[in-house]
Amino acid sequence: MNTAAIKTPKESFVTMTELVMPNDTNMLFNVMGGKMMHWMDVVSAIAAQRHSNRIVVTASVDTISFSAPIKLGYVVTLQAKVTRAFTTSMEVQIEVWGEDIPNNKKFKSNSAFFTFVALDENGNKVEIPEITPETEEEKELYNSALQRRQLRLVLAGKMKAEDAGELKDLFKK
Amino acid sequence: MNTAAIKTPKESFVTMTELVMPNDTNMLFNVMGGKMMHWMDVVSAIAAQRHSNRIVVTASVDTISFSAPIKLGYVVTLQAKVTRAFTTSMEVQIEVWGEDIPNNKKFKSNSAFFTFVALDENGNKVEIPEITPETEEEKELYNSALQRRQLRLVLAGKMKAEDAGELKDLFKK
Amino acid sequence: MNTAAIKTPKESFVTMTELVMPNDTNMLFNVMGGKMMHWMDVVSAIAAQRHSNRIVVTASVDTISFSAPIKLGYVVTLQAKVTRAFTTSMEVQIEVWGEDIPNNKKFKSNSAFFTFVALDENGNKVEIPEITPETEEEKELYNSALQRRQLRLVLAGKMKAEDAGELKDLFKK
Amino acid sequence: MNTAAIKTPKESFVTMTELVMPNDTNMLFNVMGGKMMHWMDVVSAIAAQRHSNRIVVTASVDTISFSAPIKLGYVVTLQAKVTRAFTTSMEVQIEVWGEDIPNNKKFKSNSAFFTFVALDENGNKVEIPEITPETEEEKELYNSALQRRQLRLVLAGKMKAEDAGELKDLFKK
Amino acid sequence: MNTAAIKTPKESFVTMTELVMPNDTNMLFNVMGGKMMHWMDVVSAIAAQRHSNRIVVTASVDTISFSAPIKLGYVVTLQAKVTRAFTTSMEVQIEVWGEDIPNNKKFKSNSAFFTFVALDENGNKVEIPEITPETEEEKELYNSALQRRQLRLVLAGKMKAEDAGELKDLFKK
Amino acid sequence: MNTAAIKTPKESFVTMTELVMPNDTNMLFNVMGGKMMHWMDVVSAIAAQRHSNRIVVTASVDTISFSAPIKLGYVVTLQAKVTRAFTTSMEVQIEVWGEDIPNNKKFKSNSAFFTFVALDENGNKVEIPEITPETEEEKELYNSALQRRQLRLVLAGKMKAEDAGELKDLFKK
Repeated sequence: MNTAAIKTPKESFVTMTELVMPNDTNMLFNVMGGKMMHWMDVVSAIAAQRHSNRIVVTASVDTISFSAPIKLGYVVTLQAKVTRAFTTSMEVQIEVWGEDIPNNKKFKSNSAFFTFVALDENGNKVEIPEITPETEEEKELYNSALQRRQLRLVLAGKMKAEDAGELKDLFKK
Repeated sequence: MNTAAIKTPKESFVTMTELVMPNDTNMLFNVMGGKMMHWMDVVSAIAAQRHSNRIVVTASVDTISFSAPIKLGYVVTLQAKVTRAFTTSMEVQIEVWGEDIPNNKKFKSNSAFFTFVALDENGNKVEIPEITPETEEEKELYNSALQRRQLRLVLAGKMKAEDAGELKDLFKK
Repeated sequence: MNTAAIKTPKESFVTMTELVMPNDTNMLFNVMGGKMMHWMDVVSAIAAQRHSNRIVVTASVDTISFSAPIKLGYVVTLQAKVTRAFTTSMEVQIEVWGEDIPNNKKFKSNSAFFTFVALDENGNKVEIPEITPETEEEKELYNSALQRRQLRLVLAGKMKAEDAGELKDLFKK
Repeated sequence: MNTAAIKTPKESFVTMTELVMPNDTNMLFNVMGGKMMHWMDVVSAIAAQRHSNRIVVTASVDTISFSAPIKLGYVVTLQAKVTRAFTTSMEVQIEVWGEDIPNNKKFKSNSAFFTFVALDENGNKVEIPEITPETEEEKELYNSALQRRQLRLVLAGKMKAEDAGELKDLFKK
Repeated sequence: MNTAAIKTPKESFVTMTELVMPNDTNMLFNVMGGKMMHWMDVVSAIAAQRHSNRIVVTASVDTISFSAPIKLGYVVTLQAKVTRAFTTSMEVQIEVWGEDIPNNKKFKSNSAFFTFVALDENGNKVEIPEITPETEEEKELYNSALQRRQLRLVLAGKMKAEDAGELKDLFKK
Repeated sequence: MNTAAIKTPKESFVTMTELVMPNDTNMLFNVMGGKMMHWMDVVSAIAAQRHSNRIVVTASVDTISFSAPIKLGYVVTLQAKVTRAFTTSMEVQIEVWGEDIPNNKKFKSNSAFFTFVALDENGNKVEIPEITPETEEEKELYNSALQRRQLRLVLAGKMKAEDAGELKDLFKK
């Protein structure tokens, strides 16, 4: 298996496109937050699969803000790529756009970071390839991934805040 | 409308129960993270509706950790209640349990905080009732809600970390 | 296995909450009867599982009357509990409420009795625990369960009407 | 509108065919009772629409017994026809067969009676055509419909048992 | 197994009935083409199963024209029957009607030819029974099936146009 | 509105990604043909919307051959682009790949041509922009679109075969 290989974020890149149907929407005819997160989970799971060539399960979801609502009949475009790989887990960035095609408008709806763990067929954690960022944006995401990781560990009660050296920078941004 | 009233967390309390069906699961026959978040969004939206007596939309989702997988055929119990109300938004806590009934096992699967904004029929923000916590646990959730709110604002780039006085406590916990 | 134990109706109690979505409704935007029965079957199957700690299958459904329609966007609350256990089967009572939360109205929609058979992994019937009713309402449901059982047997052609002694009372109520 | 016309049961006859998919089944890979009732409601609503040329809503469902389970991959055939029309409501008989086509087996699974009310666009009850049974079986169903109607009224608490003259025959069958 | 038998088109005949629900429709509230093809595939697969008593998979779909739109709330009736059997494959004709029952209108919506291959449990092709058309219409469909088969082969690049003798007639019709 | 503009195929290009779930598959755990066509319809409708900035409806589907089955758990990638625009209609090419990510295999599954008509909000046909192919492949698809169009017209009985001059080339290919 190719767990020893080094891969790039581009190799895990996935585009998913959905048409907003009646059952996806709330009483104001906007996509429900829960439906959006369902799509975000699928697209990021595929990116994580592409990086690891493994079965993957969602380990955590970082804070998501929903701002620009996407209406019934609009098209939703989701793009995901792995930003950084750890021993058996990886962080995936997801970006979401809404598109009102008859009115020729496309807008950024939201973005998020999900993390996945790679498993073998018996459900045991397995090592995954390292990742080498190529573009400036990929390098920035690669570097800031450590901060997000520490924040997750602190919030999950698995790391003490005083040991989370990277978080100082995050809160200075 | 009763937007001036003061309510308690108990009045918004919701229990939702789901049976895990094949299409909810991944290749290891566990509930997919995205499906779980979909259910969490519905149960917490109903709690937010109960508190505000308004149409509500998901504004943000705090970090979620998935640890104990819930398998095909298990029963999922989700419980949600409003922890604190702000002017036009409110925070909801969701707790999730998995249950393997034939083997008589019930376990905590995960928990999360979602925030919702209350809207009128035209989609404009409207004021909502205040909340008065009653039990010890409700009071603790009410108090810590300010920290979580500041963290959300900092992470969304809407507040500077140095202005987030409540966060110091969070990172000391 | 705990098939010898005696349990109470409370131990099997389940609450299920659903939000009425577009695909659940008919041309008048009310929940379709068939969708409602689908939800009633799931909630009562979970109650039967909780009592028996077994795989259960629906054996029969008693007469259901639909009166108060539940509209798109309303919340549906279903509650189920086992009323009486027989050797390998049990009767479950389901009660259903509709809720128009923005207008602060909650109303009883309908109620029904479903019966379930407990099975092992090979699909063979297995014995289940007895039940001891505790409250006055539980005792009444426990006692009247015999009448409903005879009516089911008569209607299914498995018992002669003249042998159904309990039915006289039912028709006098 | 043709509400004055007299129609036959044949004119309302509907056949529906479904393929059992994974999400329709329980842990033993048999169709769940709730899914089956969902299908039964759709097929009988179409029969009621055909008779009345109106929007219809489910008013009640008579006792249903589930005996022969239908497995994943089997074909389900449902047939429905109106048996008797009252002023604004009608009774529909539904019969259900399971079919294991690769093994060339077809078997009766269950049958039931649903009643529907005819409504105009504003949700008000409207008169519907009378029905004239043609075959022997249709005549028998037409005649026994009165008994079933009285049983429904008695069970719903809308008629006293002693006034239900037709029920004596039912319990003698 | 009865693969040696000769069957008639009538023996494979299937009727499927669907009620158009919100999630089946596009922004003009008409059934989406893709949803319609999904139903056409299910009904024709069942017809192919009935003829072959085998697991079947869709091999090809002939040109389909969509003309008369079917609206939300209408009833869709699909009928399918095998027109001709080849060694391990068979052609199925599907006809589709829309029905606006409250307005008493029924209209032909479209028709198509799908072909299926019969497989055993391991996914290997297996021989299927021959077919003997009985009515005039069945005989015509049986005869013209050769033309459609050649067109499929030419379009799939598996037969040269000049070898497709039957196609001359097709283009003369 | 920009109906006068000239656009390129690239501007209409759409990528859609789906994860094969249990309810998408047949008894051999392969994607059902009908589900695949449903996805093909959605992705090509979005491409047609992008070209026309209009509501679009499926007008016809050309012959599709299904060869390489895509299994449960695999990832499906669909890509669509407009190949040629006519006055109020346009042809879209769809290409489909299956991907077994844990085993690092990606394969072409099938391809097809769908045509769409552009409509205004009242359902009337409207003119759409012309298209200018840029790459060699786009030019070839643009040119051969006339042949496919004539074949559709002949097969739909709207053009006589002897008037279909372009078809001679098609059958010589």
